[in-house]
Amino acid sequence: MSVTLPTIAVTMGDPAGIGPEVCLRLLADREVTAACTPIVFGDLAVLQRVALCCNLRMPERIVRSDQWNATDSRDFGPAIYDLPVIDADSVCPGQVNDATGTAAYHYIEESIRAAVAGEVDAITTGPINKEALCNAGISYPGHTEILAAHTGVQRYCMMLTCDQITCSFVTTHVGYREVPKLLSVERILDVIELSADALRRLRKREPRIAVCALNPHGGERGLFGDGEEERFIEPAIAAARQKGIQITGLFPPDTAFLPDRRIETDCFVCMYHDQGHIPLKALAFDVAVNVTLGLPIVRTSVDHGTALDIAWQGKAGATSMIEAVKLATRLSAERHLSVLG
Amino acid sequence: MSVTLPTIAVTMGDPAGIGPEVCLRLLADREVTAACTPIVFGDLAVLQRVALCCNLRMPERIVRSDQWNATDSRDFGPAIYDLPVIDADSVCPGQVNDATGTAAYHYIEESIRAAVAGEVDAITTGPINKEALCNAGISYPGHTEILAAHTGVQRYCMMLTCDQITCSFVTTHVGYREVPKLLSVERILDVIELSADALRRLRKREPRIAVCALNPHGGERGLFGDGEEERFIEPAIAAARQKGIQITGLFPPDTAFLPDRRIETDCFVCMYHDQGHIPLKALAFDVAVNVTLGLPIVRTSVDHGTALDIAWQGKAGATSMIEAVKLATRLSAERHLSVLG
Repeated sequence: MSVTLPTIAVTMGDPAGIGPEVCLRLLADREVTAACTPIVFGDLAVLQRVALCCNLRMPERIVRSDQWNATDSRDFGPAIYDLPVIDADSVCPGQVNDATGTAAYHYIEESIRAAVAGEVDAITTGPINKEALCNAGISYPGHTEILAAHTGVQRYCMMLTCDQITCSFVTTHVGYREVPKLLSVERILDVIELSADALRRLRKREPRIAVCALNPHGGERGLFGDGEEERFIEPAIAAARQKGIQITGLFPPDTAFLPDRRIETDCFVCMYHDQGHIPLKALAFDVAVNVTLGLPIVRTSVDHGTALDIAWQGKAGATSMIEAVKLATRLSAERHLSVLG
Repeated sequence: MSVTLPTIAVTMGDPAGIGPEVCLRLLADREVTAACTPIVFGDLAVLQRVALCCNLRMPERIVRSDQWNATDSRDFGPAIYDLPVIDADSVCPGQVNDATGTAAYHYIEESIRAAVAGEVDAITTGPINKEALCNAGISYPGHTEILAAHTGVQRYCMMLTCDQITCSFVTTHVGYREVPKLLSVERILDVIELSADALRRLRKREPRIAVCALNPHGGERGLFGDGEEERFIEPAIAAARQKGIQITGLFPPDTAFLPDRRIETDCFVCMYHDQGHIPLKALAFDVAVNVTLGLPIVRTSVDHGTALDIAWQGKAGATSMIEAVKLATRLSAERHLSVLG
């Protein structure tokens, strides 16, 4: 009896960054290809240049745009789906511009289309450069917002997860100063519920959620801050508890992530980007996986950037990409089960 | 030839917290008493109650207020300097109020007076409760501000240090929302210079200072935030470099604290409380020591709070207090040398 492996669309990321190298390493990883069928959505000619620069092997299967519709992607095996958008010869390693931004955006759009159409089971995204996107006239601050807009979803959030620690985020890619304005009971409760739902599926039991305060020391009952704890965070915790979610907090941000608490917590709900990213990267750089919760499709991502300083040099590790594809594989299997069940 | 040990005034902290227990453990630590003479500035009757509750030994030497001036503190040996402010029988473990706040504040004031007068070589402060201070009508947000006000110092900052990581802070005990308003080139440069000066003395070589951004991803050149990086942080880094300080950055907050960078950095200059406290406590809870830089006196502190939930129960560890007293000892010796040199 043959088992069909889940197909994961892997976007190549910005051509001038480490994305192409990381994708080639992924396609050559036997543990990955035993568990799923990764298909890199990117530019064949760029990948060929990077393979030469980094002394990496190209995969056997290349799918041209005009071949995609003729075949079931599940029959491809590990492959490159060639989406020629950029003039490959014009790409300088480490130098992003409007052309590299446009190309990176096109791979994402095509992967979303394929996932929504059910042609692939999940998406894993490679690293993009937000400045290049912006230069290309694309105003989304990141992948998460692109995915939400293209799938018409309002209620979604980012989660970062690895063995040591998992964090989900009430706000992400906004300036420091914008964060307090974006807090509301509804938004915090949404993130708590999305996190509990995702962790319930991953852990196969009721997860324990911990919620962080915004202000130092949790505001010390109004001594610091503008009462964001009392006005927004505590009511959201109370509402989540009412709904039967196993929830603790709020915790002062600096003591939330102590070793003992990390052991007893399945997910920390964080109010802003660096509140969760700082402990995550300090404890587990390069292995955490970024998941977008709330989408109708499964999407994971590497947790690193384009690392322009080492692009095309054969120095980039694929650990985060491999972990991201593995998690996408688990979540898409889980999704099939929950759809069937 | 007898060597005179440095005398460290150790404030007992809030009577209702874990401060008294931690102080008794400190006085019984032979490694500490071999290196310095710790004198607990606190309430004898409270310490006696705590010693009974926690089954801890009292020190042999007790100094009454009226004895202090008659003797050189260096002749005391490890001791309690009895400052009876509170009715000891009225103290309930774990319950802070205006009376416990008033008492904690009195120990601090007396220790500052003794340090400024040269009667002790340094101060190490036990944990206080800001709400209790506030209830007692004392409006300082923390020790650092009390010390600055009592010594008339304008240019000072908090530093937290341990073997794994050292951070100094441009802002500390203010609400999340207040931070951007408090950033200026002058303030950031002050903190860089104070940090470089302190680390130069501790490491006996030119230290390497790393500066963190405010916004996620360092603002990505203006995509997030209000240009705090370009307006305040980068000019301060440039000015410090001009002055010959070995400085790197600015770094996106979430990648500043990666393992490799921690190894090559003597001190991280952080823009806000939790930016540095989160990685510090996640990596090294209970061993970091808080130092106030820029004061005319040496002052260190535990890096934990009053832990009201375990007060007077014999459960509190004294690691942070012991480390704080050891660092105060080193810094006061260093200070004597630099005064002599």
